[in-house]
Formats: sequence, C-alpha cells, structure tokens
Amino acid sequence: MEISELGEFGLIERLTKDITTKDATTVKGIGDDCAILSPTKGLRTVVSTDLLMEGVHFDLTYVPLRHLGYKAIMVNLSDIFAMNAQPHQVTVSMAISSKFCVEDIEELYAGMRMACAKWNVDIIGGDTTSSLTGLAISITAIGEARSDDIVLRSGAKPNDLICVSGNLGAAYMGLQLLEREKAIYNEQIEEARRSGNKKQMELLRDAQPDFSGREYLLERQLKPEARGDIITTLKKTGIHPTSMMDISDGLSSELMHICHQSGTGCRIYEERLPLDYQTVAMAEELNMNVSTCALNGGEDYELLFTVPLAQNDTISVLEDIHVIGYMTEVDKGCALVTRDGGEFVLKAQGWNPLKK
Amino acid sequence: MEISELGEFGLIERLTKDITTKDATTVKGIGDDCAILSPTKGLRTVVSTDLLMEGVHFDLTYVPLRHLGYKAIMVNLSDIFAMNAQPHQVTVSMAISSKFCVEDIEELYAGMRMACAKWNVDIIGGDTTSSLTGLAISITAIGEARSDDIVLRSGAKPNDLICVSGNLGAAYMGLQLLEREKAIYNEQIEEARRSGNKKQMELLRDAQPDFSGREYLLERQLKPEARGDIITTLKKTGIHPTSMMDISDGLSSELMHICHQSGTGCRIYEERLPLDYQTVAMAEELNMNVSTCALNGGEDYELLFTVPLAQNDTISVLEDIHVIGYMTEVDKGCALVTRDGGEFVLKAQGWNPLKK
Repeated sequence: MEISELGEFGLIERLTKDITTKDATTVKGIGDDCAILSPTKGLRTVVSTDLLMEGVHFDLTYVPLRHLGYKAIMVNLSDIFAMNAQPHQVTVSMAISSKFCVEDIEELYAGMRMACAKWNVDIIGGDTTSSLTGLAISITAIGEARSDDIVLRSGAKPNDLICVSGNLGAAYMGLQLLEREKAIYNEQIEEARRSGNKKQMELLRDAQPDFSGREYLLERQLKPEARGDIITTLKKTGIHPTSMMDISDGLSSELMHICHQSGTGCRIYEERLPLDYQTVAMAEELNMNVSTCALNGGEDYELLFTVPLAQNDTISVLEDIHVIGYMTEVDKGCALVTRDGGEFVLKAQGWNPLKK
Repeated sequence: MEISELGEFGLIERLTKDITTKDATTVKGIGDDCAILSPTKGLRTVVSTDLLMEGVHFDLTYVPLRHLGYKAIMVNLSDIFAMNAQPHQVTVSMAISSKFCVEDIEELYAGMRMACAKWNVDIIGGDTTSSLTGLAISITAIGEARSDDIVLRSGAKPNDLICVSGNLGAAYMGLQLLEREKAIYNEQIEEARRSGNKKQMELLRDAQPDFSGREYLLERQLKPEARGDIITTLKKTGIHPTSMMDISDGLSSELMHICHQSGTGCRIYEERLPLDYQTVAMAEELNMNVSTCALNGGEDYELLFTVPLAQNDTISVLEDIHVIGYMTEVDKGCALVTRDGGEFVLKAQGWNPLKK
C-alpha cells in the first residue's frame, strides 16, 4: 500500500494502534503535543539521542528493515546502559521517501517494537514525515538511575582495570562480509546485463549468498544487543565502575575518550582483546589484522568500563567480562602492548562520519 | 573551513565549547553517553520531538541557516507550551551533507542557541553526523509541569469557548511570497542564461527581492515565536484551558484533532478568524481566499485552546487572544459559519507531508 494513501496521521494510527505503555513512569504516550512522564522520586533522568541516515549508517541493499528498526533502538538503549541506568522510554522519528510502502515501514516499526519489548521500554512519541531521498531515523531514549549509581566517562583513576564485555570486531567483520557479497553480486549482475543473459539475471535476483559459518558475524552487525545484562551482573556483584561508555565507534576511540575525560593514560594488551573464532577466521580470509579490527571496528555495542584494582578478584571470575589492561598516569599516554611485547601509541581510527 | 578538517568530535567541540547549562534541573549536558537531569520533585516531565528534512520542511534557497536553527528549536518549544508546561532542555541532532562548511553549521547552531536563550533552555546533547544529500535536523524538547496544570487535547467539553492566540495565515503568506520570488528569480536567471547575458546574470546573483511592506509575513514564516507568553498570561489570570494544542499544520486540522480526541463537535466563525493586515493584503494580491489561508495555512505556531464558557468575561479582555467559536456535542460535527451566514463542514486540508 502506498504511504500517500494513508497520509501522516493514517500511517501513525496504523503503526501505533495497538501500542500500550507499560512502564510505571509513563503517564501518557503517543497522541498529544508531548508525552508525559512521572519521574521516579529521588532518581535522575538520563537522555540520549541518535540520528541515523540511509547511505551513511545503513545500506538497505543488505539490511532488512526489521533489523534496522531493532538496531536503531538498541544503539540508543546501549547509551542508557552505558550510564549504568535503566531505559524506560523512547521517541521514534522517521523521514520516509516515496520508495517505501506502508508494509516497509511496518517492518521497520516491528523491529523497533521488538527491541523495546526486550527491555520493557515504551515508545511514547515521535514524528513521522517525508524525505526527498533516503530514510532518516532519529531516536531519543530516556532512562533513570540513582544519582550514586550513574557512571560517567570521567571517573577513571590510574591503576583502575580496563574491562570490556563480550568480544570485539565481529560487527565490523559482519559489515565487511556484507559489503563483499554486495560487490560480488553487483559485478555478476553487471556482467549478465552486458552479455544480455536474461535468465542469468533472473537467477541472480533470487540468489541468496551463502553465509554459513559466518552467522554470528552477521548477527553482530545486523542485530546488535545492548548489554543491559552486564549492568545487572555488575549490580548483583556489587561492582561500581569508575567510568563507562559503550563501544559504538571502536575500542581505541572510546578508550581515548575515557582517558581524555578522566585525565589519565592507559595501557592495554593486544593478547587480551576478546575475539570470537569467526572474527579471527574472517579477518584471516580477508587478509586483515584482527587486532586492528577489534581496536577500530566499531558497532560492537559492548561496554567499556574501568573498576578499581581492588576488585580484580571479583571481576576476573565474571562471565563475558574481560580485563584488557589498566589506566595509567596521564603522562604515560595511551599505549597498546602487542603480542610480541612491542609498545605502540593508541590511535583513534574508528568510525567518524564527518572525517575524510 | 571544510567540516572534514574537524571531523565529528572537532565540530562538536567547536559548536559547544562555550555552552554552559543553566537550568536547575540540568545536572550534566553534552559530553557523555547521556545527559543527566534532576527532575523537580512532584512535577511531571513532558517530551516532544520533531524531525525536519531539507526540501520537505525547509528550502535553503531562501531560508537563512540562522533562522532555520531558531525555528527548529521554537517549533519544539511550542509543543511544550501547548501542554501548558515550561521547557527546560533540548537535544539537537543534525545530519550534514558535504555542501555545508563549518561556518554554515555555526550559523545554524547560533540560531538554535538564540532560541534556547530566549526561553532559558539548555542544549544538553545530540548527535552530529553526515548525510548523503540534504540537511536533517532532529530536536527533542523536555519540559516540566505540575500534573494539575497539564492540558491535553482531550479535555474540551460542549459549550467551551474556542480561542486562538495571535493571528493566522501570516506564515503561510510569507511562504507564498518567498516561493513567488524564488520562481521569478529562477525565471530571470534562466532567461539571462538563454540569451547569454552574463552581466544580467551577475546583477541577478547579487539582487535582493524587495519585501518592503511584507516584513511581518516573512518574519512569521522565517522566525516564528513559541507563545510561552500566552501560557504566562493564562496562568496569571487563573485561566486553565480544558484542551490545548499548537497550530503547526493549520487551524482546521488541529481543531479537528481536539474535537476527535475530546469527543465533541465545534462551530467556528469566519468573521472571528484573527488576521493581520499584511496577510489580508497579500492574499488579495495573490488572489487567494484569506480565510482558507487562515484555516489551513499552518506554521503559525499560535496556541489553540478551549476554556469553559463561564470564563468568557475574563478571556475576552485578554490581549492577543481571540474567541473564534465554541465546542458542540459530537453529533453536530465540525462547522464553519461564513461571513454571509452560510455553514460548511470543516475539513482538514492543512500540511500533511505524507499525503499526495
């Protein structure tokens, strides 16, 4: 169905007709000039926002709309968790070009709702409008935390242990895989077109690339999970990080933010970087340095945090959390110790959409 | 300066280096994964969001970037006032294409800061990223109000008086004026190009259209003001609207939202529609029906609200507030009574970006 048949209000009604709000702090969701919240007495509110643009943040030739919706929400919830807070609400704005039909936007929205449902987050409002060219998605996430629980980027001290959750570089490898298949596909289509082989073109249109053995990489790229489970684990074990942020642009870049804002240096060990088997295998296949991918890959949405050295015994036994180094005095700079004992200055080479 | 010289973090640093937060509920603004707010005890939080796309919501051939920034903020503050709340914070996200330089974005941001300063609103965060084609701006505004003070769209009752602030249709007339000048200019340039008249082309490039006597219309289109002053007036005089919203898409469309959500009908009078002299003159010049412009024009960002009939004496003497009709039982429908006493069914023909 064409979106213009419904118009803005018809589309909004269709997308949101069975949406109910469940969070105790949501008083009123979609349907007025503003949503209304009743903040929990004594808690702080935290707010994060992201703007995702087609062609810059996602490529719809290989990203299914449902996955895109899921990811758009998750990356914002990840920012809330990175404050050691709990997410409660999101607003969802979309600008849609005429190439999309109603069913497309329903798919996108279904993914968003799935991600919200996972963390009991309410969709409380937004804006639905048109775009001349691509799709634009803007999400604002709202959460709460006790003032004492909130963790900033600026609290790390020399000798604190540097920890990351999960593993690194897999989302980036997933992206490389998708980009490679896209390039191969485009080449084949182009060749079939040149040779006028219509049957071959039809076959190609229905063809699905074989990603077997690489499913984990795709999942990490297409359907990332915000690590709210790590926040729960830390709370349960009584660990209060001294600094924390989520890894969206790449470990190096994020770690340097923490060092800069905490006034420290850092020292991390290449051999400690947590890697999945598929990441290592894929990097080898592509002839890429897997450590570089883990350091600069981005989009892993794992948590990077520091804890006092005294908590070494507690943190070391926790599942899916890895100590990769420690903070130093600021004059030591940011250092990477390689497997062979060499030492390099850490550089932020991660994702920067406005850099050449 | 090219934006790519600075990159994302360099640009953010440059735009936000002298931003300080002033609002008592802002604990931490820009610089971490989230901003942190300390909601006022006992108050509700209200949240509104908008996504503005180049080519759909604004045309940079005649909208100066500073004005665009100002307007982008104001339209969101307008939504906060429309809840009878006070704005405290905004987040600002922008996706920028390569046609913009650093100075352009500084202009845009300067307009945003000017609008925020006017209402003592803090810029607490956002996202700055790139776009393949046009400029995209997403703003989320956050405000507070006592639960009892909040005014929804759904509270109007039959016999309530329908009020609007300011005057209607001027922003739409301003848009017509700008569009007309753009068309004339393009035609002249095209003609000069066809005839190879280079001198004429140069002259045209420096030419500024003469808008004298039409300044008010341009100001209404390019630099709208959110009517927080009306909220203050209502509070001072002890008037609590039964329903309220701001007029962004056009009076008819908004009034029908209120009727729909309140379960009422309405009856408004053409002769009561508040019009500025310049709006009337411009409509005449363009051979347009000025009432149609006032009913469907949009972008006036005036407040539309209803008050109990008993407050007629109080409301009637207030400056810049106009009673244009009254609410009816739902079965009476939505009616417009024309100057000659005719009666028409009100139709929502306002701005709808997703309608054909």
